[in-house]
Amino acid sequence: MKTRAPLVDCDVHNRFHPTRLADYLPDRWRRWYQDLGTRPNTSAGFTRPRAHASITNSWPAGGFPGSDRDFMTEQLLDRWHHTYAILNPIDQANFASQPGDYAAALDRATNEWVAAEWLDPEPRYRGAISIPFEDADLAVAEIERWAGDQRFVHLLVNTVSRAPFGNRRYWPIYEAASHFDLPVAIHVAGNSGHPKSSAGWPSSYFEDHSGYVVAFLDHVISIVSEGVFDRYPTLKVVLMEGGFGWMPSLMWRLDRSYNLLRETLPPLERKPSEYCRSHFWFTTQPIEEPQRPQDLMNVIRWLDMDDRYLFATDYPHWDFDAPDRAIPADVPAHLRRGIFYANALALYKRLPALPGGEL
Amino acid sequence: MKTRAPLVDCDVHNRFHPTRLADYLPDRWRRWYQDLGTRPNTSAGFTRPRAHASITNSWPAGGFPGSDRDFMTEQLLDRWHHTYAILNPIDQANFASQPGDYAAALDRATNEWVAAEWLDPEPRYRGAISIPFEDADLAVAEIERWAGDQRFVHLLVNTVSRAPFGNRRYWPIYEAASHFDLPVAIHVAGNSGHPKSSAGWPSSYFEDHSGYVVAFLDHVISIVSEGVFDRYPTLKVVLMEGGFGWMPSLMWRLDRSYNLLRETLPPLERKPSEYCRSHFWFTTQPIEEPQRPQDLMNVIRWLDMDDRYLFATDYPHWDFDAPDRAIPADVPAHLRRGIFYANALALYKRLPALPGGEL
Repeated sequence: MKTRAPLVDCDVHNRFHPTRLADYLPDRWRRWYQDLGTRPNTSAGFTRPRAHASITNSWPAGGFPGSDRDFMTEQLLDRWHHTYAILNPIDQANFASQPGDYAAALDRATNEWVAAEWLDPEPRYRGAISIPFEDADLAVAEIERWAGDQRFVHLLVNTVSRAPFGNRRYWPIYEAASHFDLPVAIHVAGNSGHPKSSAGWPSSYFEDHSGYVVAFLDHVISIVSEGVFDRYPTLKVVLMEGGFGWMPSLMWRLDRSYNLLRETLPPLERKPSEYCRSHFWFTTQPIEEPQRPQDLMNVIRWLDMDDRYLFATDYPHWDFDAPDRAIPADVPAHLRRGIFYANALALYKRLPALPGGEL
Repeated sequence: MKTRAPLVDCDVHNRFHPTRLADYLPDRWRRWYQDLGTRPNTSAGFTRPRAHASITNSWPAGGFPGSDRDFMTEQLLDRWHHTYAILNPIDQANFASQPGDYAAALDRATNEWVAAEWLDPEPRYRGAISIPFEDADLAVAEIERWAGDQRFVHLLVNTVSRAPFGNRRYWPIYEAASHFDLPVAIHVAGNSGHPKSSAGWPSSYFEDHSGYVVAFLDHVISIVSEGVFDRYPTLKVVLMEGGFGWMPSLMWRLDRSYNLLRETLPPLERKPSEYCRSHFWFTTQPIEEPQRPQDLMNVIRWLDMDDRYLFATDYPHWDFDAPDRAIPADVPAHLRRGIFYANALALYKRLPALPGGEL
């Protein structure tokens, strides 16, 4: 008799019902929120192909996709037999560039809401700690507040930021992440005010979406070249929703440039590609889909990072990857096992061991 | 007896002696230039590993690297037996974001100087038309001024721009480029004021240099998705100094996104990867240098764009690629022939046929 394989979904998006965020804010910030709201997510400020970029049948009664726990549990966890689903709240992307105290209050409200309304009632959900990452001191305080709750499995920050993530303004966050052994997940989104590249603002959602990889390149270059991994040698970074097909040529370029320009950098103990292989993970949605499936396997062989791919549906977004169709048929069994659960269980030590002891 | 193969170098940087630009400006703009100068090139505004990012022996007496024609002719053209060297003036990168009339005067001065001091005395040099590309009407006027001079072989614009190059503000430039059959060369540099990505400003020249590819991704996405190639089906675009290892995964991503989001775009006649293969060229410097040389050949096979690679030294910059070492030994003879001259002669119809009739 065939038993069902475990499934760990590393990128699921819940969001507040329109009125619920205010319930979790202290008086001062509740008034601010009700008067001023939050700034828009500029990585997604363009016309969306479908309302809120969500699959059409993901709308619960009276709310936005992702806002109704029971609806999501049934549509996602029950339907696809999830073992765990890691929640990366959508609203969080609009918080980091707010004034620091306000950002901190919004993130704290988010974490309290996740704990009370998602993790308490349904143990298959796991949390991300939303942090006001543009103010490292406030971010560290929020990390310390939640790190003891083992149901929160990583820190959540966004690609659209004030500076590339190797910048020392973010180092206290890495200090705390290392101390509590919490991976840092960088997810597409945010509102730093910077356009997507030095080429300025795109015209369409297609352009925006096709170019999500761009900021990931800059963050990887920065984190590696500023020496973050020498300073925090156990730090783990998860790149969410950017694919990985761009990574081989970036690693070649970094190693070549490093050979030529190392005198201009802080001293690094290893060459850039070695840091990349040791410290980065990737979620699979949206996985590259070359015309010839073997080309994806070529990329995977090049990268030599077989234990670094983490399955993600990106529910409830329009480009949702169904577990039965997300990973191309050419991907061999040992890789599939890693992608669907083993890699996540190895990375996220806070996830409880599986009932059957599988890994 | 072995005859020497032709050599067309598609990216060589000349620049003004500090006082010479003023000589080519009309009175009004000469005073402006002498009082205010130009804005810095923000893609290269960081500490350079060597002065002016140039190879140490490229400094002529009394000037910057690239500023002395006879010195450059001897050090580059005579030493390496160039057939042709296409000049992309360094100073041009600082012009486009100036006020329009001033930008136009600076570009016109540059073109006049190139014609008088480089193309007239030395027929192995060929020119790029510098244009004030952020003001399309002025750019078109400058194109019309020089298009009749067959020694100018392409239009020169920069990666750092006000908008991605598919934006309709640039379409009149493509109209003129198509009319005169002049390829558009996009070279790394510029000063739009936008940081290199939504992650903000980098800390080091290493970061900046390693991330040059980022803006190219955005420009390719934009030009393809805005329907530029349906409107201008003979338009040719040369991507200069960004490599091409990132191109396969971008093409996969574009095709996948296009399948899902085509309803949100202007109607396109072909899928994105087909436009990429039909309309883009790449200069080789800096060519990707994977640890395993066969990986470069894998990328080249994937791209299936064998006739689209153009040799470039990037003289006088510090990462100058010497013709005898630039192209890895694994690259087979027919590709080498294409890279070193045949592809350039096929693209740049304005280059005179070779004396021996080779191609």
